[in-house]
Amino acid sequence: MSAAAPRVGFLGLGIMGAQMASRLVGTGQNVMVYNRSVAKAEPLRQLGAAVASTPAEVTSTCDLVFAMLADPKAAKAVAMDGPDSAVAGIAARPASAKPVTYVDCSTVDAATGEQVGNAITAAAPRTGFLAAPVSGGWRDARDGTLLFLCGGHQTAYEAAVPGLDAMGSRRWLLGSTPGDAARAKLMLQVMMGNIVGSLAEMMALSKAAGLDEAAILEVLGESAMANPLCKAKGELMRKNDYKPNFQVYLQQKDLRLALQLADDLGVPAPISAASNGQYIRARQMGFADKDFAAVRAAYEAEVMSEPETEDA
Amino acid sequence: MSAAAPRVGFLGLGIMGAQMASRLVGTGQNVMVYNRSVAKAEPLRQLGAAVASTPAEVTSTCDLVFAMLADPKAAKAVAMDGPDSAVAGIAARPASAKPVTYVDCSTVDAATGEQVGNAITAAAPRTGFLAAPVSGGWRDARDGTLLFLCGGHQTAYEAAVPGLDAMGSRRWLLGSTPGDAARAKLMLQVMMGNIVGSLAEMMALSKAAGLDEAAILEVLGESAMANPLCKAKGELMRKNDYKPNFQVYLQQKDLRLALQLADDLGVPAPISAASNGQYIRARQMGFADKDFAAVRAAYEAEVMSEPETEDA
Amino acid sequence: MSAAAPRVGFLGLGIMGAQMASRLVGTGQNVMVYNRSVAKAEPLRQLGAAVASTPAEVTSTCDLVFAMLADPKAAKAVAMDGPDSAVAGIAARPASAKPVTYVDCSTVDAATGEQVGNAITAAAPRTGFLAAPVSGGWRDARDGTLLFLCGGHQTAYEAAVPGLDAMGSRRWLLGSTPGDAARAKLMLQVMMGNIVGSLAEMMALSKAAGLDEAAILEVLGESAMANPLCKAKGELMRKNDYKPNFQVYLQQKDLRLALQLADDLGVPAPISAASNGQYIRARQMGFADKDFAAVRAAYEAEVMSEPETEDA
Amino acid sequence: MSAAAPRVGFLGLGIMGAQMASRLVGTGQNVMVYNRSVAKAEPLRQLGAAVASTPAEVTSTCDLVFAMLADPKAAKAVAMDGPDSAVAGIAARPASAKPVTYVDCSTVDAATGEQVGNAITAAAPRTGFLAAPVSGGWRDARDGTLLFLCGGHQTAYEAAVPGLDAMGSRRWLLGSTPGDAARAKLMLQVMMGNIVGSLAEMMALSKAAGLDEAAILEVLGESAMANPLCKAKGELMRKNDYKPNFQVYLQQKDLRLALQLADDLGVPAPISAASNGQYIRARQMGFADKDFAAVRAAYEAEVMSEPETEDA
Repeated sequence: MSAAAPRVGFLGLGIMGAQMASRLVGTGQNVMVYNRSVAKAEPLRQLGAAVASTPAEVTSTCDLVFAMLADPKAAKAVAMDGPDSAVAGIAARPASAKPVTYVDCSTVDAATGEQVGNAITAAAPRTGFLAAPVSGGWRDARDGTLLFLCGGHQTAYEAAVPGLDAMGSRRWLLGSTPGDAARAKLMLQVMMGNIVGSLAEMMALSKAAGLDEAAILEVLGESAMANPLCKAKGELMRKNDYKPNFQVYLQQKDLRLALQLADDLGVPAPISAASNGQYIRARQMGFADKDFAAVRAAYEAEVMSEPETEDA
Repeated sequence: MSAAAPRVGFLGLGIMGAQMASRLVGTGQNVMVYNRSVAKAEPLRQLGAAVASTPAEVTSTCDLVFAMLADPKAAKAVAMDGPDSAVAGIAARPASAKPVTYVDCSTVDAATGEQVGNAITAAAPRTGFLAAPVSGGWRDARDGTLLFLCGGHQTAYEAAVPGLDAMGSRRWLLGSTPGDAARAKLMLQVMMGNIVGSLAEMMALSKAAGLDEAAILEVLGESAMANPLCKAKGELMRKNDYKPNFQVYLQQKDLRLALQLADDLGVPAPISAASNGQYIRARQMGFADKDFAAVRAAYEAEVMSEPETEDA
Repeated sequence: MSAAAPRVGFLGLGIMGAQMASRLVGTGQNVMVYNRSVAKAEPLRQLGAAVASTPAEVTSTCDLVFAMLADPKAAKAVAMDGPDSAVAGIAARPASAKPVTYVDCSTVDAATGEQVGNAITAAAPRTGFLAAPVSGGWRDARDGTLLFLCGGHQTAYEAAVPGLDAMGSRRWLLGSTPGDAARAKLMLQVMMGNIVGSLAEMMALSKAAGLDEAAILEVLGESAMANPLCKAKGELMRKNDYKPNFQVYLQQKDLRLALQLADDLGVPAPISAASNGQYIRARQMGFADKDFAAVRAAYEAEVMSEPETEDA
Repeated sequence: MSAAAPRVGFLGLGIMGAQMASRLVGTGQNVMVYNRSVAKAEPLRQLGAAVASTPAEVTSTCDLVFAMLADPKAAKAVAMDGPDSAVAGIAARPASAKPVTYVDCSTVDAATGEQVGNAITAAAPRTGFLAAPVSGGWRDARDGTLLFLCGGHQTAYEAAVPGLDAMGSRRWLLGSTPGDAARAKLMLQVMMGNIVGSLAEMMALSKAAGLDEAAILEVLGESAMANPLCKAKGELMRKNDYKPNFQVYLQQKDLRLALQLADDLGVPAPISAASNGQYIRARQMGFADKDFAAVRAAYEAEVMSEPETEDA
């Protein structure tokens, strides 16, 4: 690969970001990475990536930049705050340079997405911005099987495609603004919250009715409703084992955002509202930091203690 | 097949029953069938089945008898009412005869299941009764891929196995009473109603938010929640096409029964209660006899007219 | 009062019935009473009432008969069961006798009301039946300030007026069938359950928000929403004092009946459904036999112990 | 009254404010008023009030200042924005002047209350701030029968008492921060929304059940639940007359704020959530700007047209 090859930048090397950046390197891209704590960049350096010391260094150098930050606050800080930020790096590029496309894969609310997008596109003429939150976990990131839910202009989407296809197996442009990506993600979270909430309700009824819960889950697994989520969460509910994967408080926060969206749009959302109430109750019973399958606990009169589990 | 071979009886040759009885004949059983309207028995006769003129004739002759009737009323009438009933046939058997096992595959409520079961087992000593409602449609019946949700004594279950395995691909003994089968079925119906209700809610939000609904369904289809039910019903909702497969009023009736069960058991069921409210609204808006995907209509302010569809 | 004066009958001398019958005697009516346990009739005898040994004795003698029984089972037993029943007494009257008007003040469900009404009116030609459940407690019964919610024919209503006006301060003919009275009562119970449920929700929020709950109740008491029920129940909630007046399980049963009615009528009832869920949770948490203000407990994560109170 | 008498200031002379300021003048206070549109100040001038041309003029002159603005935006603008604002006037006072007490009677959310309070108290040392939103309409303002729901320091509360007592009949210090007043008001709004929502639900059921709705309302009016709100709104529902008094969108906004508060506090609020859904549905059906009794319409399948009214 020649030194002149276009560089792809990557900001944020957490559990997900590190795997995603590795995919970019592994598929032959010329990659420059940045992470606040530089130690996490070392494995990428050994794979051949350049390591920058600020976000600005990445955006002043690379034409296509991906960001994968932990939360809205970090996404805003890296993109917009101060002379080391991505925005500063874009503004510092010579007028003759190719326009940057900045792709934010962090999961953020619609307002944050719009805010970051506006700051980035205002940094220099013709700068592109794409919101591209992912569906999938670190194994998907490692295997390049992430799903990208994109919102932004068609041009930015097309510029991002080579990187998206190196890191994921499917991608969709769901709307023309960054907020559309956040809202689309929220739609999936609503389904997830309601399905797992319903499963908890059904399991509580099955138990109270004296039915064989394991067999009920088997039957469900053979029906037209069969899906991996119910299979996994149903088992956790049976075992009363709520080691966190995706926490109650995060699932409930997404339901809350969806209910606010529904309210803004003037659409009643009674099922999500009822489901939200059960996640709030699970929080109230002390399960905020447990896996969201712990919504099952909201159907019991007393707070149950969790079984000891071996693996941490 | 010798004349002395044990006969398997089948009562009720509707859309489902005819296919199920055909499977029994096709797998080499010596079958005797009964249907109120005798014309529907003709295809079975041509396949080699004997045709009885009353339920009693079947139960006085066969050791293993399956029933597949349209509703609780028909299930009770065939089993219990009058001198032509299944009970009468069982009572008429000589004391030396092998005890009968009666397997009711009809979908009935728990109370009806218990009532029929009690009448059958009281008809003669050692008579067995198994409630075995099915999950699956007529194609599954034709292909022998039905799922049987059984409730009753282990002995009756074991006696029924050869017939169950000729007609279905999976079977579970979910509890020790006929009511347990009905309650287990209800658990699946609760999940079905709540998942499709949630899907309707999410689709209504997506539409109001200006998102690409077809793409949202694709994303859902790639997620850990992917399941054939959402795929099928999501398409119907997008097309506003509610040609009945399983009707709104039937789905709502099942939610109502589940809520009464929850009430009896002292378990709150807020998600099912909210979902039930939306199906009632769909009824109120004139969709009682449409497919239950029409719960989508409950999220619109005005009653929408349905598109013309070609197949009636 | 001459011996020939028309006799008014009264069946059932519980806490309410004893007071009601006393009112009839006190306003100068010529009264004959019946109670299963004869000891309870003694105070009425001392006031001047005749004491019968069977319901039939009352209905064969009196032209206007009131019944106030504990529950649907008792209401049916006294009215319809066996040779001592009210029906038997009516049937035994000579054809020339004045037709009887039977007024059932017991609180029963609509189905029981219709059943008792049919049996009574079938007992003899021109027999009148009025369902007239009451609103009010034993103090109202003592003071003649009960409210009568009536359902039945205009003729029966008019025949009952002298008795109703001796025992109560207001009366309404709400519909033309016995079931209408039960349904009207249910409407009030729905309001009661929902208002007290809302009060509990608001008090839980106030407490969690650190507001002065006593002051909030004062403000409510000065607003356009001020009502004696909220004043009384709000105090009980603040004191966490749930000595039973009207129990959780009874209030929840009424919400359940109302939800079944709503379902039958095809009207969504989401607020009552949500409220019902909270009463079920209160049952689940062990408050079934406490005052229905204990729905407040459904908003806490842990089951609270009740304070010691002096009077049991 | 001498020229040296302490002046009471009043900012905002809308429908409510004009009446409130008149009460202050009428009870002998030495009053200075301000209104953005000066024409509205004319009646007050004729009553004897001084008229200021900016909020700053009022706060630099008066020791006790009341504000009654239309919404959070106006409340903030008058208090905080620019050199004419109340804050600027306070800052301009000589260090030797008596500290100002600023009482904001506007209905604002908790966040706005805290923001305005912080700005005011930061304007000069020892400045007092009291949030004092009112319960009551313009007739109460005219008659001095408003209720004040106060939040702030005890000192500010006591300084405000002479003015509060001139304008209202009751006052409560509900908590120590401006946000507490907003939250207390929200508690009343939750009750109002839920009670009227329940009333609508009950009226819809009564109608569907064929009961006499007018009589049902009469019975309710004789029960322990009787309150002026139900009486008024029940009549409007019966007449299908929704000329706006307090609009659907305002009531729904308050429920939304209450649900967000509940979410923040970790308290489930299923009844309010269900009720909120019905107000959203009323908005969806086109009733956003009608009186909130129009939540009744959410229980009908079709949007009803409103009757012509003569408006009083």
